[in-house]
Amino acid sequence: MITEIALLKIRGNESKAFEKSFEIAQKIIAGMNGYINHELQKCLEEEDKYMLIVRWEKLEDHTEGFRKSEEYQQWKKLLHHYYDPFPTVEHYKKIY
Amino acid sequence: MITEIALLKIRGNESKAFEKSFEIAQKIIAGMNGYINHELQKCLEEEDKYMLIVRWEKLEDHTEGFRKSEEYQQWKKLLHHYYDPFPTVEHYKKIY
Repeated sequence: MITEIALLKIRGNESKAFEKSFEIAQKIIAGMNGYINHELQKCLEEEDKYMLIVRWEKLEDHTEGFRKSEEYQQWKKLLHHYYDPFPTVEHYKKIY
Repeated sequence: MITEIALLKIRGNESKAFEKSFEIAQKIIAGMNGYINHELQKCLEEEDKYMLIVRWEKLEDHTEGFRKSEEYQQWKKLLHHYYDPFPTVEHYKKIY
């Protein structure tokens, strides 16, 4: 299992709209091959900041399967315009 | 439930030693009031980088209960010398 972690910074005053769009968008990733589960977490210390955590069976399920899919185009359309700056996405493997 | 997230950068060549110390240190947090669970995740893209995720019943279980405890002094002694720079710790609440 691989954990994808993205720190999302949302344009000012768009957090509520982002959450609504994410509610729809999350159904897209949840249907992808290799998807295990996800969480959208909102930062308590900083406004308009979220952490997206997605668990995938293997790295390529995200980097190849999802990112090169038709569904990714819908995901992008729903969410990418909220981000400023565009987020860095990293992958992690569980040690403990 | 609150999720504590800390991005940990470890001094060069000390990652293996850090993991061994963490194996001991994790028993300290696991015994604290309000502790739910934790994960130590290692970054695939960047050397010597980890994400520590700890779930607490409420914010104060971490910021007050743990940080002001005797046990925190042991945790600190075991782990803090590995970090460079000293990590920023943030708290998140689950949206989805």
